[in-house]
Amino acid sequence: MKILNSKLNKIIILIFSVLLIGTSGYMLISGYSFVDALYMTVITVTTVGFSEVKPFTPEDKIFTIFLILTSVFIVGYAVSTFSEYLVSGKLFDYFKHR
Amino acid sequence: MKILNSKLNKIIILIFSVLLIGTSGYMLISGYSFVDALYMTVITVTTVGFSEVKPFTPEDKIFTIFLILTSVFIVGYAVSTFSEYLVSGKLFDYFKHR
Amino acid sequence: MKILNSKLNKIIILIFSVLLIGTSGYMLISGYSFVDALYMTVITVTTVGFSEVKPFTPEDKIFTIFLILTSVFIVGYAVSTFSEYLVSGKLFDYFKHR
Amino acid sequence: MKILNSKLNKIIILIFSVLLIGTSGYMLISGYSFVDALYMTVITVTTVGFSEVKPFTPEDKIFTIFLILTSVFIVGYAVSTFSEYLVSGKLFDYFKHR
Ligand SMILES: [K+]
Ligand SMILES: [K+]
Repeated sequence: MKILNSKLNKIIILIFSVLLIGTSGYMLISGYSFVDALYMTVITVTTVGFSEVKPFTPEDKIFTIFLILTSVFIVGYAVSTFSEYLVSGKLFDYFKHR
Repeated sequence: MKILNSKLNKIIILIFSVLLIGTSGYMLISGYSFVDALYMTVITVTTVGFSEVKPFTPEDKIFTIFLILTSVFIVGYAVSTFSEYLVSGKLFDYFKHR
Repeated sequence: MKILNSKLNKIIILIFSVLLIGTSGYMLISGYSFVDALYMTVITVTTVGFSEVKPFTPEDKIFTIFLILTSVFIVGYAVSTFSEYLVSGKLFDYFKHR
Repeated sequence: MKILNSKLNKIIILIFSVLLIGTSGYMLISGYSFVDALYMTVITVTTVGFSEVKPFTPEDKIFTIFLILTSVFIVGYAVSTFSEYLVSGKLFDYFKHR
């Protein structure tokens, strides 16, 4: 239970980091307002992706590529951590205690 | 089987709640028609996300951020419930009955 | 192996049905060309969702809601079939043959 | 560990191939700049899918359909390889060594 909690904490910290990096980036690089930058980050990292709030400059596109690839790795880590827990942690316990 | 059914019921109720909250929200906050609000909710929570039906006000964006993050948690719960069932429920049964 | 093949066949048939229903629907309901209708179906069911090829009428939106919810169930079935195979089929074999 | 590494390597090579094919395709077929073509490929294969950088010709749509379906198979392969490893590789080791 403690292992799950500590890994979930790590994932939550990573997700907040992505939101922070994305929001700061869109405010600094694209000159978006806080709400626009947070909105843009949330629709990007969750892959909802409606449309760009305003047309992207090449710099905005490069930042967005970086943000998408980063968040794909974070989500990948989150999923693999979770699977690892399910298979090696919990299952192992079942075998140990029967 | 009963455990699976009751958990699937919970997931279905949660999904309907998300559709209800989304549709009501877009009708009340953004002044969308029923079809537009349902369409907007479905393309948001499934992450299809074509484009906003009409340009979003900051209030619309904040509601959409809330809706996306809520539905991500619902989907997360659905997936983890399902995985938990697969690993701890069914597998356990296989070991018990062989 | 035969079980996997027959389940994969079922999934492939379901995916082709979704592509066929989507393409026919967008040709008949929205008056899209074949390429536009196939493109619209592919970006919808894979949740890429760039933008509507031309603005949607309410009928188009209702058909799209139906298409998205159908393909979500198909994908859900595909994933659960696959997981079921992995857990109950293959694993079971490992235990039987060791 | 070696098996995981070699399979992860294969997946990484496949992902780079998809990025290379997508970027080349959008540069040659749609006449996009390198940044636009890479941006278009990344938002397509990750299913973020904001909007087309410029309106698509029928050729662009056919190439995009091909790119999406290819990357769906790659992602499918990546997920099934990973699941296979988790279930048949790692789990098997746990049973062998207890
Ligand atoms: K999308
Ligand atoms: K979009």
